[in-house]
Order: sequence, then structure tokens, then C-alpha cells
Amino acid sequence: MNQQFFSTPVSLRQTAVTDDFWNRAIELVRKEVIPYQWDAINDRVPGAAPSWCMRNFRVAAHLMRDKRQKGAAFVPPSYTFRGFEALPEDPAHPEEDRFYGFVFQDTDFSKWIEAVGYSLARHPDPELEKIADEAIDLVCAAQTEDGYLDTYYIINGMDAALTNLRDHHELYCLGHLIEGAVAYYQGTGKDKLLKAACGFADYIADRFGPEEGKCHGYPGHEIAEMALVRLYEVTGEERYLNLSRYFIDQRGQEPNYFIQEERDRAARAGQVLRRPSTDPAYHQAHKPVREQDEAVGHAVRAVYLYSGMADAARLTGDKALFEACSRLWDNIVRKKLYVTGGIGGTHVGEAFSYAYDLPNDTAYSETCAAIGLVFFARRMLQISPESRYADVMEQALYNTVLAGMALDGKSFFYVNPLSVVPEACERDKRLQHVKHVRQKWFGCACCPPNIARLASSVAQYAWTESEDILYTHLYLGGFVEKRFGDQTLKLDIASRFPWDGHVVATIHAEQPVNGTLAFRVPGWTDDARVSSDKERRDRSGYVYLTGRWQDGDTVVLDFPMPIRMLTADPRVREDIGKVAFTRGPITFCAEEADNGANLHLLRVDRTRLELPGEGLSIKPQTTFGHHTLALTLPGLRQPLPEEGALYHPFAVPDEEQVTITLIPYYAWANRGPGEMSVFIRI
Amino acid sequence: MNQQFFSTPVSLRQTAVTDDFWNRAIELVRKEVIPYQWDAINDRVPGAAPSWCMRNFRVAAHLMRDKRQKGAAFVPPSYTFRGFEALPEDPAHPEEDRFYGFVFQDTDFSKWIEAVGYSLARHPDPELEKIADEAIDLVCAAQTEDGYLDTYYIINGMDAALTNLRDHHELYCLGHLIEGAVAYYQGTGKDKLLKAACGFADYIADRFGPEEGKCHGYPGHEIAEMALVRLYEVTGEERYLNLSRYFIDQRGQEPNYFIQEERDRAARAGQVLRRPSTDPAYHQAHKPVREQDEAVGHAVRAVYLYSGMADAARLTGDKALFEACSRLWDNIVRKKLYVTGGIGGTHVGEAFSYAYDLPNDTAYSETCAAIGLVFFARRMLQISPESRYADVMEQALYNTVLAGMALDGKSFFYVNPLSVVPEACERDKRLQHVKHVRQKWFGCACCPPNIARLASSVAQYAWTESEDILYTHLYLGGFVEKRFGDQTLKLDIASRFPWDGHVVATIHAEQPVNGTLAFRVPGWTDDARVSSDKERRDRSGYVYLTGRWQDGDTVVLDFPMPIRMLTADPRVREDIGKVAFTRGPITFCAEEADNGANLHLLRVDRTRLELPGEGLSIKPQTTFGHHTLALTLPGLRQPLPEEGALYHPFAVPDEEQVTITLIPYYAWANRGPGEMSVFIRI
Repeated sequence: MNQQFFSTPVSLRQTAVTDDFWNRAIELVRKEVIPYQWDAINDRVPGAAPSWCMRNFRVAAHLMRDKRQKGAAFVPPSYTFRGFEALPEDPAHPEEDRFYGFVFQDTDFSKWIEAVGYSLARHPDPELEKIADEAIDLVCAAQTEDGYLDTYYIINGMDAALTNLRDHHELYCLGHLIEGAVAYYQGTGKDKLLKAACGFADYIADRFGPEEGKCHGYPGHEIAEMALVRLYEVTGEERYLNLSRYFIDQRGQEPNYFIQEERDRAARAGQVLRRPSTDPAYHQAHKPVREQDEAVGHAVRAVYLYSGMADAARLTGDKALFEACSRLWDNIVRKKLYVTGGIGGTHVGEAFSYAYDLPNDTAYSETCAAIGLVFFARRMLQISPESRYADVMEQALYNTVLAGMALDGKSFFYVNPLSVVPEACERDKRLQHVKHVRQKWFGCACCPPNIARLASSVAQYAWTESEDILYTHLYLGGFVEKRFGDQTLKLDIASRFPWDGHVVATIHAEQPVNGTLAFRVPGWTDDARVSSDKERRDRSGYVYLTGRWQDGDTVVLDFPMPIRMLTADPRVREDIGKVAFTRGPITFCAEEADNGANLHLLRVDRTRLELPGEGLSIKPQTTFGHHTLALTLPGLRQPLPEEGALYHPFAVPDEEQVTITLIPYYAWANRGPGEMSVFIRI
Repeated sequence: MNQQFFSTPVSLRQTAVTDDFWNRAIELVRKEVIPYQWDAINDRVPGAAPSWCMRNFRVAAHLMRDKRQKGAAFVPPSYTFRGFEALPEDPAHPEEDRFYGFVFQDTDFSKWIEAVGYSLARHPDPELEKIADEAIDLVCAAQTEDGYLDTYYIINGMDAALTNLRDHHELYCLGHLIEGAVAYYQGTGKDKLLKAACGFADYIADRFGPEEGKCHGYPGHEIAEMALVRLYEVTGEERYLNLSRYFIDQRGQEPNYFIQEERDRAARAGQVLRRPSTDPAYHQAHKPVREQDEAVGHAVRAVYLYSGMADAARLTGDKALFEACSRLWDNIVRKKLYVTGGIGGTHVGEAFSYAYDLPNDTAYSETCAAIGLVFFARRMLQISPESRYADVMEQALYNTVLAGMALDGKSFFYVNPLSVVPEACERDKRLQHVKHVRQKWFGCACCPPNIARLASSVAQYAWTESEDILYTHLYLGGFVEKRFGDQTLKLDIASRFPWDGHVVATIHAEQPVNGTLAFRVPGWTDDARVSSDKERRDRSGYVYLTGRWQDGDTVVLDFPMPIRMLTADPRVREDIGKVAFTRGPITFCAEEADNGANLHLLRVDRTRLELPGEGLSIKPQTTFGHHTLALTLPGLRQPLPEEGALYHPFAVPDEEQVTITLIPYYAWANRGPGEMSVFIRI
């Protein structure tokens, strides 16, 4: 933990992403997902599960207005009810003053406004900003006088507020509200929502802490930990950092808060709790975080927590906390990571499974968990810029995160299996969580908005900065500006990542600038070359170039991208005798559209692999509406006999020589239903 | 469907099983399981889930006695309350007059008395018979005046009787009561329970039928269909056959009875049923049985139904019904059968999965379903003696059925996976249904008593008879007596099945006897030889020997038992690139005890298989307390590297030559916890 290397993400306003690859995704989010999300949270997407989100805010705002009209002091400065349509009728004719949906439904708004904030940072859009401002007005109008802001309890009664931290997600709502408010503030300079978020954070800060009479709890679903750090970073108010630390330090202490809380709830209901239903490990609350060394429980919650821990470790110089982060990181990467960058081996609890249990067909590998892993990775990079963190960040980002969204931005995967047979998904109830076609919107809508907020802010994962170093972690094509002292350096990156490892970074500067540019050398390349006339030091997979940069200077980076045929550690039972293919950051998969059905009958033809002209090759793939590459390789296909006896004496199968075609994993399921498999037998 | 070949099981009193193999199992049941069951159904097994069964009968009998003392007519002839201990105190201090346990808890008694009946048929045991008679007295005392006998409704009130055929198992209780009563009658000649069963059957027969005002339903859990046929066969009363046929014919007719019933229940509760929860396919009620061609739904229910259908087809000459049985049989055997003779690919609904979906680790393969498949197979044999039916019957019996019971008879498997990793069973909630150690007793105690009743009556699966033919389907060592006309022929079989295919059948007869002895030629042998001086005809895998049999005549049968290395149809995704080993009727498996952990790292060394002295071989296996064989074969084991990177470039693994040892599947999990796998990579 060497503070000299600590960094923070660059401001989005200093960046632009202009390449074909990421610009496509960002524009999809801007043009398709954000408007779609807005419709969704207003229950206007035909056929999709209603969100109820904005409706709940409206109900809560009405309640608050009535209360304020009776003489209360707190009136939001610019509260207006303009711009909100009449409540859409819904089939069940809900009564006006009820809360609908999940307890965390408020976060649908927070996630949307966060993506909006990022988008507006680079793409001014007065119409969108107007809608957003009005939505913010409504949300702020729902806030109670003392700052509380969760419509579930505002509508249902505040008596029970903060009595079920384990399940009722108030602190999760707080976390997302902060994330959204900060992003909107940074994107637009407007602080109304930020003030509301501060108000809610203050409300919580006043009520939580080690002092007697205060609540000794912490979030059931983590995110507030990292959000509060962000709020501290933007406001400079130490109480937010302290609250984050309190949540982190308190988690997993004995007696277990969630069990105690469950007992108290039972007692209030006049019951005695015999067997608590709490599984502390599900919430990463089975032991103090500094003692944890295995990633367990709900995968999204886990990586959100670890992200907050890393943030706190960086800002407080807490070495023990960083070491816990390192151990947990290593545990994930060495024992619980899919080759697609996904995490969460089991749908039971949407959780990490045990070490090396990485089933392909029943995988959970939630999109949000991969996103959380990206969060965690960037925070580890902020503390310790090591290529191994960026490698995993890139792997998650280019594969599972992007696979979560259709290429037209109109449908989404929550679960990202590595092997799919449509008949199995439809007929096997054990695979109920696995969809082979992306879905429009989920009642529990975390993944689509999470993709939106991450894609819109991807530049903040590509570049971080310290006072005198600009780090390039990902090779997005675009630019970033960085102030070194009084001077501004603009780093213009020409890249055709992820298809080509040749990158040219050109420096623009009105005046020569002294500083260090650090470039990551990806772990997947063996023969990296970096050409520059500046002083070079290498450290942990980063090349540090230090010197006096002049306008027109270039750094030429060459990261050859051989096709890699990978096997999993043989402890991964599911993958024994199988291989997966990657090239650069991209993991590939076989689809039925290219290879016919019954992908399990295919295997790699090892003998032909080494023959001249027969081995692995790449070819442009043009059917996905943007430039991609496909891989081809020599394969063998076992023929299907006539149906007959189920078991028969073994005979070496008379396999047919075929060419196996693989496409990028992120692009699967865009050509109609069909089988898919990342791992192929060898 | 050639009635000339129809047969019925021989009476157990005509048989003895004396060989090491089956006699061991039968004696285990007699000495261990039956006494244990009796303790279990009286809630006297420490640490086991209470059955509540006899307690419920006692409560019901008290209620009935009180009612009768108030002037009712029906008093069971020899009712006595002697012999029943005071109610054991239980931790929850249940009130005296309540029903406890599952709605079908009465069947714990019925299954027990059935095994007792079979056992007494060959092994007189006055003490056991006394206990049984007293238990029967109690059960009969619980019967209502009009014959109804299900303690759930007797105790809870008869108003709701027969209003939930789908779930409340009254007709299942009827079926098991009949099976138990018939077995006890046939084993002891005592008819008290048989009369009670007839009384309950009459009660149902009076209330079900096509006439208006009668109930048009049928069992939610099948078994009554075959039980009623058995009752018809023992009493000659056609109304029982007719009731069975009514249940069979009515099943799956539109409008669906279970949905209608569900709607009626809702209506009685003043509700309107929006979406029925009934899944007709789960109950095999999705279409009329004669139109069914795929085995679906709960596997035990399905094969119980098909058994009843086959019985009814045989007795009524109903060709369409037999054809449905044939189609369903073929569907199971060709698409849904494990190589262990197990059925039921999914724990969701304890059900058949879709065609070729036969996962090894998440298999359900319930012991009871394999037992039901044995029932179905014998009934198909009774109609059409074809070796292919007996092959499957034998496969189920020698593998999954026997695996259901520990070698000491003291613990049981409900679920019979083909691949087990203890850590996975313990840590993976998707495998919650899979135990890697046999359990003592189940609250839902179907499997242990089902093994008991089948093992005790196994001779009735070995031998069936028509007027002039005695069929030998299974080569148990022992004897069977058969009357041909006025003469009795005793067939004495010396067999070391399943380890040796050399069988000598010796005829004993005081006078020469004219008749036909039919011997099955197993499908797993290629070079069967049958030596006899009688006239020989071959038909469907049976050798028919006809002539004048004299005392001392012998038939010598030789069924060579090569080790067979089998592969599954490549449509079975789980087994691609893998093989399983069988020899004679026995399926083998690898256990950790012989091969170390990480069985997935093993594969068959194909090249060494063909080298002299290196190939497959058998060796005696003595650690299981009775004679068994192990197989050995040349294998390769992939080494486990140090833990490190989860994915790395593929290199041909440097496998170590090892000898793989396989033991009979039925004997697995008798040497402490460890991994097991039936299929091995090749």
C-alpha cells in the first residue's frame, strides 16, 4: 500500500470516448436505455413488470405536502408538480396512498439519474435535463422534514423505519441515492439532489454509531459504504467517511446485528424467535471484515462491500482493511471467477458458491455482480495500480457486463450462463433462473440500469489520476485531459480495442508539460512493446513514462493479441477436458447459429490445430451491426445415431471434421434462440 | 398381446430364496428393517423424524370407540387395546386428539404390514405375528362404520373427506392398505385386515363412478389402480377391477378433475380461483392415459399408474391400454433411464425430466421410483414375457433398489445420484436433495418400507406362472414349486448370480410332470447356452423347454458375464465422452475409498485397455461383509497443480498411469463419506 501510487477517477468532463466499440455502447445507453428506463420507472413499458418507482415518490410527495401544509417548516426550494402525468391506470386499481413494488424500488430512480448524470456530463441534452430536474423535484418533495428519504416507510409509516436493515434496504436506497446525486451534480453542476442525499445521509449519521442509544447496525445490502466515500470526496465532509467506516467496522461483529434485529422484531410482535432465519454469510456479516478471506454470500452485495472497503482503506491508509480486500480479491480471482469475468456460481442466494464450483449451465453470474467486480477492481487499481486488477476489470467489462445488454440496447440478461440449451431452460425447472433470450425489464430492475450507469461512465474506469500521474488502464479510443500543475495535457488515444492491440497515444499540449503517463500492459499479451522517448520504469504491469511532454509526442503501444486456448484449473470439475478461447480482452463462445445444435458433440481437433493452414484463425464478423471478429478452429463432431438403445457398448465415435466458429461472448443471443457454449471439449 | 403367455406371480409360500445374495437382503429386512420400521412407526427411533402413524390410528380408534359406545353398530370383532404402550411423550406435547404428520402417514403401517406379510409367508415368527395382529386390531378399530379408513379425516372431521384427491392421498392410503392386507392374508391366512381393506374399497366403489352424483375423480398419487386389481385377484370381486378401470379411464379426461376440484375447494372457501395451481402432468392427468406416450411428472406416481394400467390391460384384454403401456415403457427405457436402473432426472417434482436429460450429480432417481419400475416391468412380463422387460427389472433391482439400503440394513437413500462429491452436497444448496450418507428414517418414509416389501417378495419377481408354464425371470438361488395339473414340480436353482452366470436348475418331482419351463436369456450376455434334453423353442429372449420332467432332470444355463464398457446415447449431454461399466446385472462405480478424491481427474486409458494383462479384470471384493466383485481397469489421472491461476493456456496434461477400481453401485457409501462416480471419462 504505497500512497505514492494512489489515484482517483478522472472527471467525465475531461474525457471523450469516440471509438467504434465503446461509443456504440454509450450511445445505445443514451439513445435507448435511458429513455426506456424513464418509461419503465413510470410504468409505461407495455408488457414489462411495473416499477411503481415514480408513482411511489408521487404518493410520498403528496403525503409530505399535506403534512407541510399543516405547518411544517421544511419546503423543498423549487418543488413543482409540473411535468408529471396523471397516474397511469393499472389493472389492479391500487389505492392512491399505497406503496407498491419491492422495498428498494426507489433505487430505480437513483440508478436512472446516475446514468443521466454521466450522460449529461458529455452530452448536453436540455430536454433530458428538464425531465431529470422535474423528477428530482418530485423525489425531493417526498423527503421528510428531518431528511429521511425512503418512500416505503414514508408511505407505510415511519414507526418501523430502520428496524429491518437486513431486508428492507433503506441503507441500500441511501447508497444509490448518493451515487445518483453525485453523478448528477458532477454531470450538471446542480446540487438539489445532492443536498437531499446529504440530508438523508445526515439523518442516518445522526442515528448510527458506537454511542449508546444509537443504532449499531449496517446495511443488509451493501453499497452505502462506497457511496458515502464518494459523498465525502465530493463534499469534503468527514462524517460521511466516518459513517462508511462505521458500517464497515461494525459488520460481522458479535453479537450479530441482523440476528439481534430479527429477535427484536419478533419481540415487538410478541413472539419469541426460536431459530433465526438470518444467514450472516449471505450478507458478508459472518465475521468482522478484516478477518474475512473467502468471498461468500450474495455476490453483488459482496463486491459492493469490498469496493467500499477498498475506498475506505485508500482514504484512511488502513492497511489491515486493504489486506482483507487483497485476500478477498485473490479468493475471487483464483477460485470463483468465470472466464467471462462473471462471478456467482449459484442462483441459491444469487451467491458465490464454494471454491472451484463454477457450473456453466446453472451459473448465476449476475450482470450486476460483474459490474460490482469492475467497481472493486478499479478501487484496487486506485490503491495499487497492478495490471492483474485491470485484467479482471477488463475481462468483466468486455464480456459479462456487455453480454447483459442486447446489441440493440432493448433487452437484458440478469443471469449470464456459460452454456445454454434452450430446451433445457424451458423444460428444466432447475434452470428457471437462466433465460436464453434477453428480457425486457425486470420487476427487480438492477441489471439494466446498472449497465447504463457503468457504460456511461466507462471512461472513469479507463483513466485514473494522481497529482503527477495519469493512468491508462483500458484502451478506449478517445481522449482524456489531465492537469499537471498549471498545464493541461490532452492524451488522445487511437485504438481499435478489443480487436487490435496496436494503440497510438498522441499528446496535445499548448505548453510542454512535465508529468508521468502510466500505461497498463495487459496480462493476456506476451510480447508487449512500448515506444516512447521518455524515461521508462516498469512496475506491476504498468509502464511509467516520465518526462517533458510536447504537443505531438506519441507513445506507440503494441499488445499482440494471440488467440489463447485456456483450460481451467482441474479443480473446476465442470471444465475438465474442456477449453475456452480468448483473444485480447474478449472471451469467445460457440453458438448454434454458426455451429448447429448439440454443441456438446463438438470437440477441438487437437491434431489439426498444429497443421499449417488448419489452426486457429480470425475472421471479420459483420452480422452484429458493428465490427467484430470471429474465431475459427478445426473441430470434430460426433454424429447423432438413430434413436434407439440408451446405452450401448463403447466404440470410438466416427467423428466428422468440421470448422468450429466462435463469436464474442458479449454478442451471443442476438440472432434468435439457440445453444451457446463457452467451453468446448478437447 | 398373446393371452397364451399371460402369467401371474407364484405364491411366496411356494418359494425359498437361499443364495448368498438375496437371502442376505431378505434376512436384513426380516431382522433389521421390519423391527426398525415398527419402532419408527411408533416414534421410538431416537433422532429420527416421528412417523406419528400408530399414534394417529390410536387417536382415531379412541374417537371411533367413543362413537360406537354411543350406540353405533359396527364393532370390530376382536378389537383389543392390549400391547400398545402409553403414548410416548414428544417434545411439543401435542394434544391427544390431533392428527400429526403427513396426510398419508397411515401408509407407514400399510407398508410395514405388507413386508411383515411377505416375511411371515416364508419365516413363521409368532412374536412378530402377534405384534402385527394387535396392530391390525388397532387399525381396524379406527375404521368408520361405513368402511372409511384414513385417520387424517377421521380425526379432523369427515366433512372434507374426498374433497382433495389431488393432494390428500386418501386413495393412496386405500391402495397401500389393500397391498398390505393382501400380503398379510397371503402370508398368514388371516383376513381381518383384508376385510377392512375391502370395506374401505367398497366405501370408495360406492362413491366413485360415471353415474351422476358420484365422484368422477381418481387418485392424486396412484397405487390404488394396481392394488384394486390385486384385491380383485384375491377376492374375485369384479367391482374392484371395475373401480381400478374407472380410475384409469377417467384420468386425464376433460374437464380436468383436479382443476375442477381445486376450483370447488376455492368456491367452498368463498373464493374464486384465478389461476389453478394444479399441474396435471405432474399427476399424469394431462391427457387420457391411452393417449399418453411420454413418461412425465412425479416418477413414482407414474410407474405406479403404468403398473395398474398393465394389470388392467392383462385382465381385461384391453389392447389399447397395453399399447399405451408399451409406448410409455419404451419412452422410459430409451430416453429416461439411468444406467443404474433409476428413473426421475429432476428433484423438482421428484419427476421425470425431458428426454435424454439424465444428470448424474443432481439426479433424483428415487429408490421408490426404481421399485415402481420393477413393478411395471413385472406386469409387462406377465403380459408379454420378453427378456427386455426382465433386463430392466433386474437392472433396477440389483442396482438402484439395493443401493437404497445400507449393507447393514440400518440406513437408507431416498435419492440415488450417479455422481457424488461430499463437499458439493454439503455446500451447494442446489444439491440439498442429494445425501452422500444414508439417512436413518424420513418423515416422508416411503423408501425404506418400499425396499422392505420388495426385497421380502423378490421371489414373486423371479418367477411367474401360467397354467402350463413356469417362468424364471431372475436367477435367484433357491427353489419354486409349481403345480402342473395334479403334479407338483419343484425347480431348484443353484446360482451365484449376480457374480457368475452359470446356473443349474434341478427338477424334483415325485412323479414325472408334463409342462413347460421358460428361462430368460439376459440381454447383457452374447453367448448364452442352455443344455436340456427337452423340446426347445425360443421366443423374445426366453427359452421354452417342454416335455416330461423327471426327478433329477437338470437344465444347465450358461450366461457369460463379460465386463461391458457402455456409453450413453450422445443425446445425453451429461455423459458425452464418458463410459460406465457393467457386468451381468451389476452396474459398477468408482469410489474415493479405492481411487482417492477428485474422481473427475480420472479417465480410462484406452490404449492400455487392449494390452495383454492390462485390460479389464475382476477381483473378489471382501470388505462388504458378503462376496462381491470389484473391477479393475487401466486409467490415467490428471495431476492437481499447485493452486494458482484459475485459467491458463492449455497443455496436454501429464497424466499418471493408475489402476481404477470399481465396486458394485449398490454397495457404495458403505465405507464412510467420499466421492462416487458411475461414469468415467474416456
